[in-house]
Amino acid sequence: MFHINDNFCKLAESYLFSEVARRINAFKDAHPDAEIIRMGIGDVTKPLCPAVIAAMHDAVEEEADAASFHGYGPEQGYAFLREAIAENDYHLRGIDISADEIFVSDGAKSDTGNIGDILARGNRVAVTDPVYPVYVDTNVMGGRAGEKINGSWDRIIYLPVTAENGFVPALPSEVADVIYLCYPNNPTGTTLTRDQLKVWVDYALKHGSLILYDSAYEAFIREDDVPHSIYEIEGARKVAIEFRSFSKTAGFTGVRCAYTVVPKELKGYTADGKEISMHHLWNRRQCTKFNGASYVSQRGAAAIYTPEGKAQTREVVDYYLRNAEVLRKGLIEAGLEVFGGVNAPYVWIKTPDDMDSWRFFDMLLERCHVAGTPGSGFGPSGEGYIRLTAFNTYENTVEAVKRIGATRFD
Amino acid sequence: MFHINDNFCKLAESYLFSEVARRINAFKDAHPDAEIIRMGIGDVTKPLCPAVIAAMHDAVEEEADAASFHGYGPEQGYAFLREAIAENDYHLRGIDISADEIFVSDGAKSDTGNIGDILARGNRVAVTDPVYPVYVDTNVMGGRAGEKINGSWDRIIYLPVTAENGFVPALPSEVADVIYLCYPNNPTGTTLTRDQLKVWVDYALKHGSLILYDSAYEAFIREDDVPHSIYEIEGARKVAIEFRSFSKTAGFTGVRCAYTVVPKELKGYTADGKEISMHHLWNRRQCTKFNGASYVSQRGAAAIYTPEGKAQTREVVDYYLRNAEVLRKGLIEAGLEVFGGVNAPYVWIKTPDDMDSWRFFDMLLERCHVAGTPGSGFGPSGEGYIRLTAFNTYENTVEAVKRIGATRFD
Repeated sequence: MFHINDNFCKLAESYLFSEVARRINAFKDAHPDAEIIRMGIGDVTKPLCPAVIAAMHDAVEEEADAASFHGYGPEQGYAFLREAIAENDYHLRGIDISADEIFVSDGAKSDTGNIGDILARGNRVAVTDPVYPVYVDTNVMGGRAGEKINGSWDRIIYLPVTAENGFVPALPSEVADVIYLCYPNNPTGTTLTRDQLKVWVDYALKHGSLILYDSAYEAFIREDDVPHSIYEIEGARKVAIEFRSFSKTAGFTGVRCAYTVVPKELKGYTADGKEISMHHLWNRRQCTKFNGASYVSQRGAAAIYTPEGKAQTREVVDYYLRNAEVLRKGLIEAGLEVFGGVNAPYVWIKTPDDMDSWRFFDMLLERCHVAGTPGSGFGPSGEGYIRLTAFNTYENTVEAVKRIGATRFD
Repeated sequence: MFHINDNFCKLAESYLFSEVARRINAFKDAHPDAEIIRMGIGDVTKPLCPAVIAAMHDAVEEEADAASFHGYGPEQGYAFLREAIAENDYHLRGIDISADEIFVSDGAKSDTGNIGDILARGNRVAVTDPVYPVYVDTNVMGGRAGEKINGSWDRIIYLPVTAENGFVPALPSEVADVIYLCYPNNPTGTTLTRDQLKVWVDYALKHGSLILYDSAYEAFIREDDVPHSIYEIEGARKVAIEFRSFSKTAGFTGVRCAYTVVPKELKGYTADGKEISMHHLWNRRQCTKFNGASYVSQRGAAAIYTPEGKAQTREVVDYYLRNAEVLRKGLIEAGLEVFGGVNAPYVWIKTPDDMDSWRFFDMLLERCHVAGTPGSGFGPSGEGYIRLTAFNTYENTVEAVKRIGATRFD
């Protein structure tokens, strides 16, 4: 008789966004005329930019002719894209990352989920709290989370980031082997300065820890002291894997293209202390369980790095950032306590009168017809917050702020 | 200090196709004028058909406009594609599979690799031998293979398929919990009849085993008694997961789209014997570690099911099948013992005079300038065989047969 991976039975049935969708649908059924402004799920709303569209059409056309047809590509991605990434995202910023340290994939969700394949089950994992649920859930599946007790996994080290500590995680008292950091942060929209990030690189160097650095929102950074890559920090090539995505940079949520950087200096350790190249392990994992990202998607991604592509994608990101600013300033004027939204498409709002996240979610939905995401869905320290996203039209964003400003939450 | 998944250290450094490529390149360097006909790696060579190209252009164009833009899609795939699959690949053949039992993905390599995520480490795994290396290597990574002793993994149950047993695997003496079957078979190009496949479904029903049925080459089936789907066999909905791909059906090796069927009756067991829906587990896995296949790729895949798409893709498959026939008949005439190539794009050739696979590989390369894949690379029982593929032009295929027919291998 075959057996399942029992760790899956530990996961809660309902995924955060499914419950959000369920409540919105129930409200819509009861109030069919309400014009709900959805500021919950972090999907983009603007179309692909013209440079990307043109490149994807060209790539489709290449696939129509045997002479230019592209079948299986390299599992690691095509050189034209890896080289454009290395040059533009790293070399132009003075960061030492080579094209063959870059692994192109179908998405950062896949990569941040699959990275556990190359890690031992016994590692102690730390996450900032609140956190993107994928980090925690994939470690539950991988047997690294332990048991859930009072809403927390007993083998996971939680690093609270709240208004109380200015959203800067403190070093843990127990040693963390693997540390997930996401900056600009989802869900709080906050960032770390170079000095604050250096604390974590130094910690990892000291303890032999691995940092899994998710910078999917890098394109939203506008302030000078916020690092664009963890490799801006000295020593990071020895301790960090960086995940990037074109989803939010260029609206690729439906196109599916991302990349992961595994520097060649990064070593992992076997149970008996032997050093192993993590670059080699990830390469083996990808060559065995992945067959490369779509050729058309990779051609589209490469177009982001052309002069037109850069200008066009920046314009779209600026549009979302204007929305974020409208949200941030408008909600502060409305008397709410608001964080994030400066170098990120997310604003993180303290609920009024310490009400719980789901209660404020329901109130925003019922009184303002605005749907957010309850902070408690992202972890214990998200309780008492709600997340709104800037991925909407400017007009809807202004309208949402107007509605919230005109409402009393008591 | 963090630790790696030590199972990766058990894997051999060199992947089969890398070694093949290395030898071809070395030969090319030494003989720059030789016109090598590559019949090794199983990549398609014909371009995408016009119906697919048109659908992909339309999809790209939709992504250019906010009103028709598609961002994150359902992790399971769009309904338009799942319904087309259910209707055309199952209902029209009288097979009971519903659209919501179909999970669209970026490739069968991903799915056959990732399926291990939902299975316990302790399962005893059986593979036919020779076999697609991904099944074995991913189980090594997952800790289910044990140790490699004399070229075989001691926890893997090998089911030899050779000329001696007519390429029909015998039931194992030890109980197999998880059984990989690939039909039409890669690498041998052979098939099972309905009665022969029923033996395995009955075995799985009796022992509570799971069959992982890879039918990536289904489109090549032309004989009536060869099942197109394992679900043609009574009881299979309770024991089998089926993997399909558009790679070989429609030349999607660079487009990346495939699907996996997990019937709702299929139950797995926890360590303490509780029944769990495998459909539910795979859905949870995909929602957590995958973000859907590219929208453009899914639109391209749906076009395969239009009347034009069906006619055009069948024409391409027929072209490859004609090559397979040329290979099969021509090599038999040349005095070789040849298998497969009737319902599959692969022919499987017994080496003359029992020479070993790599020796015959080198001889074919040196004397005929034809590159195949050595059978021993697919497992112990592949020794003494070589695989040639039909994924080439008709002209090259005829030329390869001519060269081989004119050569003495002694």
